[in-house]
Amino acid sequence: MSGRGGAGGRGGPAGPPAKVSNLDGAAPDSTDFANYFCTYAYLYHQKDMLEDHKRTGAYYNACMQNRAQFAGKVVLDVGTGSGILAIFAAKAGARKVYAVEATDMAKFAKRLVAAQGLEGTVEVIQGVIESVDIPEKVDIIISEWMGYFLLRESMLDSVIVARDKFLKPGGSLYPSHARMFMAPIRSNLCRQRHSDFQNSMEGWAEFLDEMKQYYGVSMDCLSDEYRQEQLDYFSKTAAWTDVHPSQVVGSAACFKAYDLHTVTLEELKAPLKASFQMRVLEDGPVDAFCGWFDTQFKGSEQNATTTEVTLSTAPDPTGATHWGQQSFFLHPPIECAEGDVLACDIEVVRRKDNQRLMDVLVRHRVEGRAGSERTSAFHIE
Amino acid sequence: MSGRGGAGGRGGPAGPPAKVSNLDGAAPDSTDFANYFCTYAYLYHQKDMLEDHKRTGAYYNACMQNRAQFAGKVVLDVGTGSGILAIFAAKAGARKVYAVEATDMAKFAKRLVAAQGLEGTVEVIQGVIESVDIPEKVDIIISEWMGYFLLRESMLDSVIVARDKFLKPGGSLYPSHARMFMAPIRSNLCRQRHSDFQNSMEGWAEFLDEMKQYYGVSMDCLSDEYRQEQLDYFSKTAAWTDVHPSQVVGSAACFKAYDLHTVTLEELKAPLKASFQMRVLEDGPVDAFCGWFDTQFKGSEQNATTTEVTLSTAPDPTGATHWGQQSFFLHPPIECAEGDVLACDIEVVRRKDNQRLMDVLVRHRVEGRAGSERTSAFHIE
Repeated sequence: MSGRGGAGGRGGPAGPPAKVSNLDGAAPDSTDFANYFCTYAYLYHQKDMLEDHKRTGAYYNACMQNRAQFAGKVVLDVGTGSGILAIFAAKAGARKVYAVEATDMAKFAKRLVAAQGLEGTVEVIQGVIESVDIPEKVDIIISEWMGYFLLRESMLDSVIVARDKFLKPGGSLYPSHARMFMAPIRSNLCRQRHSDFQNSMEGWAEFLDEMKQYYGVSMDCLSDEYRQEQLDYFSKTAAWTDVHPSQVVGSAACFKAYDLHTVTLEELKAPLKASFQMRVLEDGPVDAFCGWFDTQFKGSEQNATTTEVTLSTAPDPTGATHWGQQSFFLHPPIECAEGDVLACDIEVVRRKDNQRLMDVLVRHRVEGRAGSERTSAFHIE
Repeated sequence: MSGRGGAGGRGGPAGPPAKVSNLDGAAPDSTDFANYFCTYAYLYHQKDMLEDHKRTGAYYNACMQNRAQFAGKVVLDVGTGSGILAIFAAKAGARKVYAVEATDMAKFAKRLVAAQGLEGTVEVIQGVIESVDIPEKVDIIISEWMGYFLLRESMLDSVIVARDKFLKPGGSLYPSHARMFMAPIRSNLCRQRHSDFQNSMEGWAEFLDEMKQYYGVSMDCLSDEYRQEQLDYFSKTAAWTDVHPSQVVGSAACFKAYDLHTVTLEELKAPLKASFQMRVLEDGPVDAFCGWFDTQFKGSEQNATTTEVTLSTAPDPTGATHWGQQSFFLHPPIECAEGDVLACDIEVVRRKDNQRLMDVLVRHRVEGRAGSERTSAFHIE
């Protein structure tokens, strides 16, 4: 035997945490920690996120260009990590910032806060938001909760729990809105993946020969499952991509918009279903649907931001954010002509075995072309 | 946010398993499943192990060249995976083989067994060995439980539990013995890792500048921890290596030998401590200690094998097994002359937070050279 036994990141989870604050809550449950929280306990990973300046810069601007909204306010940062957003909120004038973090990164956040001389304003609390106790209601909840394709990781749930428990009426969320987009793209990676799949099946055929020849064992009875497993991996798994705008061969559709002040946990946990259309702008194959998101900082109705900031993860000639875009490859590609309209019904469902991952189902057809309807199933890992 | 949230392998664990046998036991606990068992539920990974023909061939030979030992016997295969060892045991003449597997791979094992026409002999049972019920005592326990550096994964524990519960007096284990080795090597990877570490620290310095310049946040208070985290990763983490015998610059020491018929769970769970010496055979730097293992199929005293088979993972000009060797890089390397003797005390300890991973501590010195004593700490991930 020899499998990858570690807990996802570099090394396993750290030991039981020492107290960071008297407000500390419970630790995450152990499976979810092994699967999810663990990675965020490493500085190299915090650095990766911090030096994504489209991300960090958007939050910085959202705070510093809206000082009037932060001045004298009480702020809650859900999943503070290194503590950076709590620090921005304090710099923008907040009177008090509660910064909640489940992992041992909380200790570093506390130190970083002190190094900025903000320990009088920012209180770092270690625990999961669902179990910590914040001693007062807050005016603003700030959080960087977005995962691949917006919803992977399901961390928005925790922000909504925090909102319902701790946000004052009329208080605002930073960001306040989120949108999901899809566009048709051209991509060599699609052909690459198909050829990787074919190579893998050729490898399997050689393997069958060897097992028969060396050990007299016939393994052909598992070929269908192996094929399925490889198809799953090479064609159904969405890929992190840094798509150049020139690869986008049709109009992008915004298929979902969330107002974070009103969305409910029930809605988030239910399958996301939407229908949308994309107009093809060039003759040729559509190799993939490319998905991305943006978030907007508009504040709440009662406490609107002075300057509206947007954090977009759309294809960009200067390069992707650390989220990239998620590309869903079509096997085979759809041959299209300029002016064709791709009509899609999408369904995004949390995986039963791991609610932080997702299945994505797209039923698509070329409008007016008989027999063009297909259903493509994907996973986001 | 956007971390690696999956459960280690390709996708997360599968759903609750359907029954494979009436003898099915309990599923593994969920954290251990997420961390460990999950990977083994994929055929591509079983294929990786099966097509390691030094591995599979050694087990095949151990069975087929010892048919006298298998004829008419009852066999238990602990962690059968694809079912291959159970099939070998049946082909070698076993009357009955119980093949226990925790993951859903059990279903494929059952099908593979049937495809060989062996369903009358091999009974696949899904569950962890600690909880399944085998209706009779067995003559032979066969298992492929070895991890990196022999002990990673701690799966030998399960084999010993099975031995104490199910093996008849005088029965035998396949393999019956295991040995651990260490040798001094020369390796460019050592310098490569050191330079990767230095690049990573230069990257951190640039990052500090940016954070200060863009956001007015001073992050220098975390530099020591970042350095520590990077050192941990680049120099303390043992590396999978395929070492060529020409890189081995000294005599290999066997520092630990296990007789699997007599080793106890207590011994396995306690730290492994040993002292050994390696004679350097060439002038120049020793860049790393290279660790590997072998296992031997000798049977038990009362039921010795007719043909003794050895499965070795030593450096080999024809290439490594899928275990490779684990190399522990020395920073800085030890400058040695031909004839120098490296005296070492090693301690291998299971990690408290994940008992399937290990910490390795080596206190080493050049015999007769004052001030040459150093202690190097490593992890096996």
